[in-house]
Amino acid sequence: MKLEILPVLGIGHVSEGDDLAALIATAAPWLRDGDVLVVTSKIVSKAEGRLVDIPADGPERQAARDEVLTAETARVVARRGATRIVQTHHGFVMAAAGIDASNVDKTRLVLLPKDPDASARALRAALRERYDRNVAVIVSDTMGRPWRNGLTDVALGVAGMDAIRDHRGETDPYGNELTLTEMAVVDELAGAGELIKGKIDQVPVAVIRGYLGATRDDDGAGAAVLVRDAAQDLFSLGTAEARAAGLAAGAVLADGPGAEPADPGAVRRAIDAVAQAVAPGTVFTLVDEDAYPGLAATVTGWPSRATRLILGSPPTPVSAQDLVRFGADLHRLRIALAVEGVPSLALSPPAASTASAALAV
Amino acid sequence: MKLEILPVLGIGHVSEGDDLAALIATAAPWLRDGDVLVVTSKIVSKAEGRLVDIPADGPERQAARDEVLTAETARVVARRGATRIVQTHHGFVMAAAGIDASNVDKTRLVLLPKDPDASARALRAALRERYDRNVAVIVSDTMGRPWRNGLTDVALGVAGMDAIRDHRGETDPYGNELTLTEMAVVDELAGAGELIKGKIDQVPVAVIRGYLGATRDDDGAGAAVLVRDAAQDLFSLGTAEARAAGLAAGAVLADGPGAEPADPGAVRRAIDAVAQAVAPGTVFTLVDEDAYPGLAATVTGWPSRATRLILGSPPTPVSAQDLVRFGADLHRLRIALAVEGVPSLALSPPAASTASAALAV
Repeated sequence: MKLEILPVLGIGHVSEGDDLAALIATAAPWLRDGDVLVVTSKIVSKAEGRLVDIPADGPERQAARDEVLTAETARVVARRGATRIVQTHHGFVMAAAGIDASNVDKTRLVLLPKDPDASARALRAALRERYDRNVAVIVSDTMGRPWRNGLTDVALGVAGMDAIRDHRGETDPYGNELTLTEMAVVDELAGAGELIKGKIDQVPVAVIRGYLGATRDDDGAGAAVLVRDAAQDLFSLGTAEARAAGLAAGAVLADGPGAEPADPGAVRRAIDAVAQAVAPGTVFTLVDEDAYPGLAATVTGWPSRATRLILGSPPTPVSAQDLVRFGADLHRLRIALAVEGVPSLALSPPAASTASAALAV
Repeated sequence: MKLEILPVLGIGHVSEGDDLAALIATAAPWLRDGDVLVVTSKIVSKAEGRLVDIPADGPERQAARDEVLTAETARVVARRGATRIVQTHHGFVMAAAGIDASNVDKTRLVLLPKDPDASARALRAALRERYDRNVAVIVSDTMGRPWRNGLTDVALGVAGMDAIRDHRGETDPYGNELTLTEMAVVDELAGAGELIKGKIDQVPVAVIRGYLGATRDDDGAGAAVLVRDAAQDLFSLGTAEARAAGLAAGAVLADGPGAEPADPGAVRRAIDAVAQAVAPGTVFTLVDEDAYPGLAATVTGWPSRATRLILGSPPTPVSAQDLVRFGADLHRLRIALAVEGVPSLALSPPAASTASAALAV
C-alpha cells in the first residue's frame, strides 16, 4: 500500500483552443484507471481562452487590471493597501480573485476557469471517451489563508471522486465517536500534486496513483461542496471591515426594545462601559415596574412589551449645552446596550421623575 | 522523478514515555536518508505525556474540558455556540486549541505537544544518532480553515527541512517575476501524509520519499515561521467579534480633531449616512474658515489645528427633549465621521451662529 505522485512532463506551452486531453494523454501514455490527475488551473484557463488583453505597463495597466478584478469579484472580503481579498462568483475567497499575470505574456492576464467543476468533468469525459482511461480530475490553484504564512495548492474543481472524505458515525478504537469527520481530501491531493509540479518547471499536471476509493463512476458533486456559505462562516469579513461595519451600525442604531425585558446584568455592564465617556455627574438608573409602580402608565409612548426603564439625568444645573451633551451620552449608552444584545428605545421620562430622559430596554 | 507516500504500519498504541524513535525505526526498517517523516501530533503528545485526566461524562466533564481549554488559550479569536476558535500559546489558530478526545481513553484529553518544533527536532536527532537515518520530521495535526468546508492536515512542527519553499526573485519562462513566491510545502507534505494515514486505521506515521531538497543538515527554523503575527493578519478576529468591537468603539468614542482638516467628501458621506437616522429637520452644515471669516476666534475651545466646523441645528421650535435628541444625533454623526476616518470634537457653537452645537473636524 502506497501512493505515488508522478509528474507529467513535456506538456509545454498551452494556448487557447488546445486539446488538454490529447496533450495529457500524449505526455502520459502510462496513465491508468483509478489515477487522480491534478491539473493546474492556469492551463485549463489558457485552453479555455480565459485570458484578457491588458497594456504591458503604465497606469493603463493598473486601471485595466482593476477593471478585470471588479468584474471577477462578487464581494470584497478584505483590503489592505493594494491587496484586495475577494469572493469570486464561484464562491472562492482569494487574493485578487485568482487573476494571475505569471506564466503568460506581459500583455495578458489569466482568469480562473469559468466553472472549474465543469472543466474537470469535461477533461475527465474526454480522457474516458477518447483514451479509455477512467481517472479522477482535480483542477488546482494556489491560495493563501488566514493565520498561516505561505501558500498551498487547493482544488477549484473536481470530477470523478468526492471532494470530502466523511468519517461521520465512525468510532475510534477507544469507542469515541469521531468528531473531526470531514477531510477535504481533494485539497490535500492538490497540495500533494504541487510538491512535484513546482512553480516554473513547466510541469502543470501531476498524477497521484494508489489513492484508495479515488474514482467513482459518475462525476460526483464537484469541489463546489468545499465553498462555505458566507453566512455560515465565522470569518466572512476582514477584521478591519467588520470593525468598521460595527462602528457604522452605532450611527444608525434603530429604535426598539426587545420582546423580553433586558437582563439587569447586561444593563449594568453597559452603564459601566460608558462611565468614563459620559459627562461627570451623569446618572443612569435601571428601574422596573416593581420598583416604580404605575411607571408604564406615566410614560409617553411606553412600549407595552418592555417592563424596564433606564432613567438618565445630566449633571445639574442643566443648560441647553448640557442637554445636547446628555443626548450624546444617552446614545453612547444605547450603543453599549446594543453591544450587550439589549435593544433600547429613547422615551420622554416619566412625568413624576426628575430624569431628563429615559430608555425603554 | 516521483514522490512516494508510504504508511508506517504496526506502531499500535502509544503511551506516555514510549520511545517514538524506537517504535518508528522498528516499524519502518526501510527508512532512508532524505525521507520526510510525517508524524501525527497525537502520538507525540501521548509519548510526551501531554494528557489530562477528566471525568468520563456529566457536567463535570464539560467543566474540566473548559478549564483545560482556557489554560491552552492565549486569545479567543471567534465563538459560535459551543465552538471556540482560539490562538494557542504556540500561535496556532485552532478550534478548541487542538485539544482532542478521540483515539484516547474516555477519561483523558490529549493536548498539543508543548513545543512541536522541539518534538520534531528530538525525534530527528534520535533517529540520526541511534538509527543512523538522516530524515526530516514533520509533526502534523488536523485543522479547519475559513471559507472552505472540510479539514486538512498541516504542520505544527518540523525539523530538518525548510517549512517554506521560497521562489522570490525567480522569473517564469515569459520573463515575469514570480509574485506568489512562498509555498508552505510542509503543510502540503502533512496533507499528503494524511491521505494514507486516515483517521482510525492506526497509521499515525507516513513517509514521503523523493521530495527534492527535503533534508538539510541542520534542523532549520521549524514550523514557527508559518505562524502569522496577528497584527499582520487581515482576519485576526472573527467577524462577529470584530463587529462588536467596532460597535463598542462608538460608545466610548474619544474627542479630538485630527492633525489635518477633514476631507469635505468624507464629511458629506458621513452626513448622508445618518440622514435617515436623525430627527427630521435636523441640519448639519460643513463650514470652514474661508466661508465663515473669523470663525476660529468666536468658538469657545476652538482647537487651533482644525480649520473646519460642522454646525448642527435641531428642528425648531426647540424643547429640552429636542436638545437631548439632537445630542444623540450629533453623536450618530460623530460615529459616521469616525467610520470615514474623520476624528471630531464637540464644541459650543460660534456665538454669531444659530446652530445649537458644532463639531470641529
